[in-house]
Amino acid sequence: MRDVFVMGVGMIRFGKFPEVWMEELGRQAILGAVKDAGIDPKKLMVAYCGHSHQGRVAGQRALKQAGISGIEVVNVENACAGGSTSFRQAYLSVAGGLYDMALAVGMEKVGGGLLPPNPEDLDGLQGRVLPGHYAMKAVRHMYEYGTTPEQLAMVSVKSHKNASLNPLAQYQESVTLDQVLGSRMVADPLTLLQCCPTGDGAAAAILCSRKEAEQSGRPLIRVAGSVVRSGNFVGAGEDILASPLTRETSQNAYEMASVGPQDVDVCECHDAFTIGEILHYENLGFCPRGEGGRLIQDGATEITGTIPVNPSGGLLSKGHPLGATGIAQVVEIVRQLRGEAEKRQVETPRVGLTHTMGGAIPGLEAGACAVHIFVRD
Amino acid sequence: MRDVFVMGVGMIRFGKFPEVWMEELGRQAILGAVKDAGIDPKKLMVAYCGHSHQGRVAGQRALKQAGISGIEVVNVENACAGGSTSFRQAYLSVAGGLYDMALAVGMEKVGGGLLPPNPEDLDGLQGRVLPGHYAMKAVRHMYEYGTTPEQLAMVSVKSHKNASLNPLAQYQESVTLDQVLGSRMVADPLTLLQCCPTGDGAAAAILCSRKEAEQSGRPLIRVAGSVVRSGNFVGAGEDILASPLTRETSQNAYEMASVGPQDVDVCECHDAFTIGEILHYENLGFCPRGEGGRLIQDGATEITGTIPVNPSGGLLSKGHPLGATGIAQVVEIVRQLRGEAEKRQVETPRVGLTHTMGGAIPGLEAGACAVHIFVRD
Repeated sequence: MRDVFVMGVGMIRFGKFPEVWMEELGRQAILGAVKDAGIDPKKLMVAYCGHSHQGRVAGQRALKQAGISGIEVVNVENACAGGSTSFRQAYLSVAGGLYDMALAVGMEKVGGGLLPPNPEDLDGLQGRVLPGHYAMKAVRHMYEYGTTPEQLAMVSVKSHKNASLNPLAQYQESVTLDQVLGSRMVADPLTLLQCCPTGDGAAAAILCSRKEAEQSGRPLIRVAGSVVRSGNFVGAGEDILASPLTRETSQNAYEMASVGPQDVDVCECHDAFTIGEILHYENLGFCPRGEGGRLIQDGATEITGTIPVNPSGGLLSKGHPLGATGIAQVVEIVRQLRGEAEKRQVETPRVGLTHTMGGAIPGLEAGACAVHIFVRD
Repeated sequence: MRDVFVMGVGMIRFGKFPEVWMEELGRQAILGAVKDAGIDPKKLMVAYCGHSHQGRVAGQRALKQAGISGIEVVNVENACAGGSTSFRQAYLSVAGGLYDMALAVGMEKVGGGLLPPNPEDLDGLQGRVLPGHYAMKAVRHMYEYGTTPEQLAMVSVKSHKNASLNPLAQYQESVTLDQVLGSRMVADPLTLLQCCPTGDGAAAAILCSRKEAEQSGRPLIRVAGSVVRSGNFVGAGEDILASPLTRETSQNAYEMASVGPQDVDVCECHDAFTIGEILHYENLGFCPRGEGGRLIQDGATEITGTIPVNPSGGLLSKGHPLGATGIAQVVEIVRQLRGEAEKRQVETPRVGLTHTMGGAIPGLEAGACAVHIFVRD
């Protein structure tokens, strides 16, 4: 296995584009990454395209719109982790020596609805849908560790503040703590502004071997760790706050990258709900279990904090077009490590981490988790 | 890149199973492959699952039903080539040195319908659906090369005869030339028995490095060539009989395997329609262009012929549950090369080839093609 680098990234502003075909969103992201890498797209020999809603061979169609045909193209689906799983496959194709340059694309049009209810999903019919499940986690965290509704809401305030500095975010307006707490209740204690929105989007990244990366003249952003695992998406039955899947996936990635949580300078994690981000602080190792509420309250995860999390605005405010999310996280981390994140730039980061989860209803016990670690050499 | 072998295969009988969940079909195929390989399933470190209709993280669910969780799982979609694309990814993960053992699964429940009509597909609304398009090819082949309706029908007769020797085929009854020609017309000259059926199914294969293959004590079936490409699915605009995608993909695979079409002892190809198989004879290099009709008439592609094609019964009679098809082709070739194909055994084959195509409506100009070449060492 040889070193792999990210030499180009691109994404469109996330939002709702009812008049635009998904292929057009993908095309723009792909061309953005090609331009950023400064390469002839003919050098791309393989593409992995993550998406969940777009039907058959959608990746081939989006690539053809971008003028790329004839190469190996694989459509990848791993629910909300589809984009980051595509990235893993692209990584693998270069690391294994098969190709010198690979494209990872994530794209989605979620449009009006996210996960259609499944008539065979007895849990869901009784209310155990994702917001309900995360709400149960929040209540348990409050009970066990004294986490407060205000601490939960602070995650959303931070997210919206960061997104207001991100011209590619779906929502770019700051909100106050009172606005978050006063927004419509979705699943107590999670209010509307504590749940990620639906939306459309696309993002792309170009991976390459050391030789191509050095020739590009761009900063060397190395993929130091890249892990995808399967397992229980929303916590084991007896301990609803545990996420062995995130813990084990990130542990594997830390070992692969020879770094630890204390080395991470900037993180994009799967904040589908505010409580999710607080739990990920703990399960990614940024703080001990039970202390996630204090971590946000202390400001540690702000852009100016000791471990900035979701400087892009994350799923909560940048938006969450399922398949696009994992690659958009990579886009943000690469720009942060390059020092190109403008108003939301974290101070001289060297190590960045992305974390994405994917599950479906029914089947939350069989989900996906992807963690990638990037190092600016 | 190191040598990769197939150490275990499994599949269920294809058919229609309205009462059975797709995960259960997948589970049975996976356990069949595990048993055939004689391994502890805990040795599997990655799984690629090809399917098109089953929604999110279906692979994880099927694997969990088979008692496998925690490993890297990727759902792969490439329309009808989804299964063979999964096989390619599993190949890559072993060839690149990342894993010593990988699982490739294909599974599908097509149930009542195949490709739902797309209201934006103007071609389709005017009749350019797959049977219509293949019918146009058939008419052109008849016009240019004197191919006869009887020659087309002979492909179906051969297919059904072979399937009658295959206990895992969806249709196991022989048919006569008159029955094929006299069945309901679908798209002139293609009658019902010249179009593949809809159905459900699952198949699995376990790939491994040389060390594991030698330890298994099973015959050494090496993956000598493995190629996936994208491109025009149904022929370029000006020459409807050309399939540059199949030609280029198979040419790449022949070069990778250091063999030529004349070396292939047994082939499973994408015979979605009878004319398709005749065109594939030509585009895979088994005969010159225009001579496909004569090749079937001469008996060359019978099990006892010089280049046996689709001894399993192929898509036409074994059935075509999209994502399962590519892996089922691998199952057949592995069993043929091992000498385990019982009544439909080709005489001492050493080189086998699988060929699958995947396209969707709209988007026939952006499809997938996969060719794998196997050698018994």
